[in-house]
Amino acid sequence: MHRSVVQVRGVCIGMTDNTSPALRTALAYYHAWTSGDFERAMTYVADDIVCQAPAGRLEGAQAFRGFMGPFVGILKRSALVAAFGDETTAVVMYDADTAPVADAPGAECVTVKDGKITHMRIIFDRLPFERARQAA
Amino acid sequence: MHRSVVQVRGVCIGMTDNTSPALRTALAYYHAWTSGDFERAMTYVADDIVCQAPAGRLEGAQAFRGFMGPFVGILKRSALVAAFGDETTAVVMYDADTAPVADAPGAECVTVKDGKITHMRIIFDRLPFERARQAA
Repeated sequence: MHRSVVQVRGVCIGMTDNTSPALRTALAYYHAWTSGDFERAMTYVADDIVCQAPAGRLEGAQAFRGFMGPFVGILKRSALVAAFGDETTAVVMYDADTAPVADAPGAECVTVKDGKITHMRIIFDRLPFERARQAA
Repeated sequence: MHRSVVQVRGVCIGMTDNTSPALRTALAYYHAWTSGDFERAMTYVADDIVCQAPAGRLEGAQAFRGFMGPFVGILKRSALVAAFGDETTAVVMYDADTAPVADAPGAECVTVKDGKITHMRIIFDRLPFERARQAA
């Protein structure tokens, strides 16, 4: 399989075949929101997305927008750590530098159907954000 | 490629070819520590492992042991969410049910050399653990 590695840094730099349909959508979503184009990112999100986030379960694109939109607003920089996928599932891990927290990596496991993310499991550490909020 | 899916639940269930050397080691490590056999898990960890954990950078197997050992001690149950890998890199995401925190998923991106994990990027949410600690 050929490989497509874009905007990757760090020690873990695994990328599966970019022809994986799920990975293609996951990376299109990732590159859109990390470039600040959240509206374009949302075109890859299914209306009935279910997102399992650290604070709980979010149902529907509007709830998802309310969760991710503010994060996009504070993002200063991001870089892929790893991205893998197959027909229906992809995992993306990334570094993120945000206004309140400099080192805020995230990991997403997405299920993709017809080019839209229907399910996302997202993991990140809320503690430094909580500490920054308390310090502010 | 053939697929090997073991102990998987949830919506994201991607698994790449289990003949990926890095994934084979990542899953051997995962199945060892989640079954409570931390000493066996440590046999897959390089002496000079570098681990980027939420609280900071850990260098060497002893530092890594001090970080992961206590987590293994509080683990009640775990299930793979997704696992992908290639020759040198693997990503594993899992659910974890721990004594202080019921829903404590994690994601690891590992670099593997000669069957040992030489680098790990691990992401999880420390906030519920901090809250449980404060409540105790």
